[in-house]
Amino acid sequence: MGINLTNFLVSKSQNRKMGQFQDLDHLDGLSVSSVSANLYDSKRDDLAMFYFRDGANFASIYTQSKILSENIKWNLSQKTQKIYSLLVNTRNANSFTGEQGYRSMQSIAELVSKQLTEKQKEDEDDPKIIKPKNIIFGCTGTIGEKFPEEKIKSKIQDLIKNIKYTQNKYIWMKVALAIMTTDTKPKIAMEECKIGNTSVKIYGIAKGSGMIQPNMATTLGYIFTDADISNDVLKKLLKKNIENTFNAITCDGDTSTNDMISIFSTGKAKNSLIKTINDKKIKLFEESLNKVLLNLAKRVVADGEGASKFITINILNSKSEQDAKKIGFSIANSPLVKTAIAGEDPNWGRVIMAIGKSNVDINLNKLSIKFGDLIIVNKGRIYNQYNETDAANYMKGPAIDISVDIGNGKKNFTVYTMDFTKEYININTDYRS
Amino acid sequence: MGINLTNFLVSKSQNRKMGQFQDLDHLDGLSVSSVSANLYDSKRDDLAMFYFRDGANFASIYTQSKILSENIKWNLSQKTQKIYSLLVNTRNANSFTGEQGYRSMQSIAELVSKQLTEKQKEDEDDPKIIKPKNIIFGCTGTIGEKFPEEKIKSKIQDLIKNIKYTQNKYIWMKVALAIMTTDTKPKIAMEECKIGNTSVKIYGIAKGSGMIQPNMATTLGYIFTDADISNDVLKKLLKKNIENTFNAITCDGDTSTNDMISIFSTGKAKNSLIKTINDKKIKLFEESLNKVLLNLAKRVVADGEGASKFITINILNSKSEQDAKKIGFSIANSPLVKTAIAGEDPNWGRVIMAIGKSNVDINLNKLSIKFGDLIIVNKGRIYNQYNETDAANYMKGPAIDISVDIGNGKKNFTVYTMDFTKEYININTDYRS
Repeated sequence: MGINLTNFLVSKSQNRKMGQFQDLDHLDGLSVSSVSANLYDSKRDDLAMFYFRDGANFASIYTQSKILSENIKWNLSQKTQKIYSLLVNTRNANSFTGEQGYRSMQSIAELVSKQLTEKQKEDEDDPKIIKPKNIIFGCTGTIGEKFPEEKIKSKIQDLIKNIKYTQNKYIWMKVALAIMTTDTKPKIAMEECKIGNTSVKIYGIAKGSGMIQPNMATTLGYIFTDADISNDVLKKLLKKNIENTFNAITCDGDTSTNDMISIFSTGKAKNSLIKTINDKKIKLFEESLNKVLLNLAKRVVADGEGASKFITINILNSKSEQDAKKIGFSIANSPLVKTAIAGEDPNWGRVIMAIGKSNVDINLNKLSIKFGDLIIVNKGRIYNQYNETDAANYMKGPAIDISVDIGNGKKNFTVYTMDFTKEYININTDYRS
Repeated sequence: MGINLTNFLVSKSQNRKMGQFQDLDHLDGLSVSSVSANLYDSKRDDLAMFYFRDGANFASIYTQSKILSENIKWNLSQKTQKIYSLLVNTRNANSFTGEQGYRSMQSIAELVSKQLTEKQKEDEDDPKIIKPKNIIFGCTGTIGEKFPEEKIKSKIQDLIKNIKYTQNKYIWMKVALAIMTTDTKPKIAMEECKIGNTSVKIYGIAKGSGMIQPNMATTLGYIFTDADISNDVLKKLLKKNIENTFNAITCDGDTSTNDMISIFSTGKAKNSLIKTINDKKIKLFEESLNKVLLNLAKRVVADGEGASKFITINILNSKSEQDAKKIGFSIANSPLVKTAIAGEDPNWGRVIMAIGKSNVDINLNKLSIKFGDLIIVNKGRIYNQYNETDAANYMKGPAIDISVDIGNGKKNFTVYTMDFTKEYININTDYRS
């Protein structure tokens, strides 16, 4: 399953390269490479390397879970200003693997840094010495299984051998496929914009909420730019722009031990370094970054397990953004709302129920609800021209927009989710083996 | 579907009357009656009257939803010490019905109180004048549809005509069936105990979380006793004992606008009136009340839509009861945990995920997890004798016990839920009409 997004999800500018996917090409200072380390006992690529030949500034945001995977513990404990490589494996989450899992990170980082240092000596005029702390990891897959350290180490040389200094859309597609677990489609997005007079690129890939085998709903999102931006500004930009993108999506309300969104900046576009978030030159960049993040986040939702409908929930005119968020997620996470939408039933009573249970004080007499452009509830009453046949027809489309106007303030928040189908249960009741 | 509870849910004492249901008989001071008001366009009973000929002390606890149905608004605004009748209808929740819905309550209460006053004059030596404020309502069913005031009013006379002053198990079964929506089984429970030297009865009926048509997950639970207990003590007892019974169950995490649990005390057992919760004579009564509430709550879960497994989640040795509750509900409401159990997969990784996302600080090195008697995780590590075949066999049973020992305190909490099956989705994706 999975929803075809071409017609309603990607904005015209985002879709300018035509076709279902935007074509990513060369981003100066970054090379990508992927191989099969046979982690799935199949020939699919399952190990990806992102290599920054001159290092990259970076920032990461990790899962809110109180239980962290070992790779995230590794990433958090490396104190460095530059990353030279991000290594991503699938099939094994390196979660609940204890000391062995952490030592594997150490050992692989040592090997990668050593071999990349060799590569620097061969390729660069001004070779750098790369250290283990310059390497970070993304892991996704089964938790509680021994981390396949040896299998991965045996493929590092191949990964590095595959590195090309100019990327094209085929290399990007290959790497986007390599980081998938049960995703049915790769997730790729891009924008271009200016910082001052300098053109810069923002590329992103992600994987979504495949959850069998017994994966968690791990979300991995990696953003790359050739702009020159300090670590501190990258962190602030990411934190701020994740709020209405990756933090505004929900598939089933579950959270993984491995979620990770990172941004890397190679600086090769040679704009003058952005050192403060207050620099006005960053405005267009921030808008474009938000578009890339939102595009990827929507693709994650649209490819949610068993999804047949893409659902946008707009909460309008709320007293605070926090209240709007609470109401939005209460609707988006309600199994009763999600199953009604799967059944193409304009069951607005369940939306009312979900608003009621969100624990936000509301004035019913000010509440209005629309499905698409159809007014259902108008200031606390069923709209006098409400016609269930129209509403039922509306529910047949692949994109359902629900607007809830709270009418007691000026804050809005939008949540994105998908429906709850038989296919979701089929996928998730499957025994792992 | 629905799970047969006889073998594992009902304790021996609760089951002493044999068979799947306990037999309720006469409870002095209470008459029950039910009819069909044709609310479903079928001949099923859908309207039930509970009549207290000499009035009853009472207490109620209502939904936590911020949106209240009109009957609950009615109940909350009646200031009275005695209830003479509880009237329960199905098919229409009287929620989001506005003034018409509230005025219907007023109008029906006027009719019921008038006709019951007539009955008092006919039957009683010391007839009482019953007022509208002495009548309360339970409603469950569709929200947003016009409340069927006339249909209900036309059947009040029949309801009253049906009243018998001695009840038996058939009358109770009939009324337990009348309050069902999509429940597949009636829910009945009873206990007997002593207050001082006086034997007293505690009877209860409930309806559960049927959610189609488009009903909400409305839970109605009504407890009746012939003990003599003040309104204030009833309220305190109910509030306290709902915590680890009806507030410890979850089907899909959704909350209705109509939930209502009430207790009525006729005083006919003639114990000396209990005026304070500190009265030691109430101890056995409270234990029995808790058993009745827990028995009914478990039946609601076991009959949750599409349920094939009854799941008990014990959180042990937590720092606070609140933490234990958060972790318990995080596991119980996780679609990934619930689907794994439906698939008979001992997927403890998803339990870890749900613990992690509960937002409670835990020390992984102290965490232990058991499925039934099988140790899975022992102090933060996979147990060295863990054998997945045994665990997979365990998952085949109809009752799954998951114990999570947090190891950082002394507080426990138990949550009850059911699994998430294809049948749940089938039921809830069905279009209403």
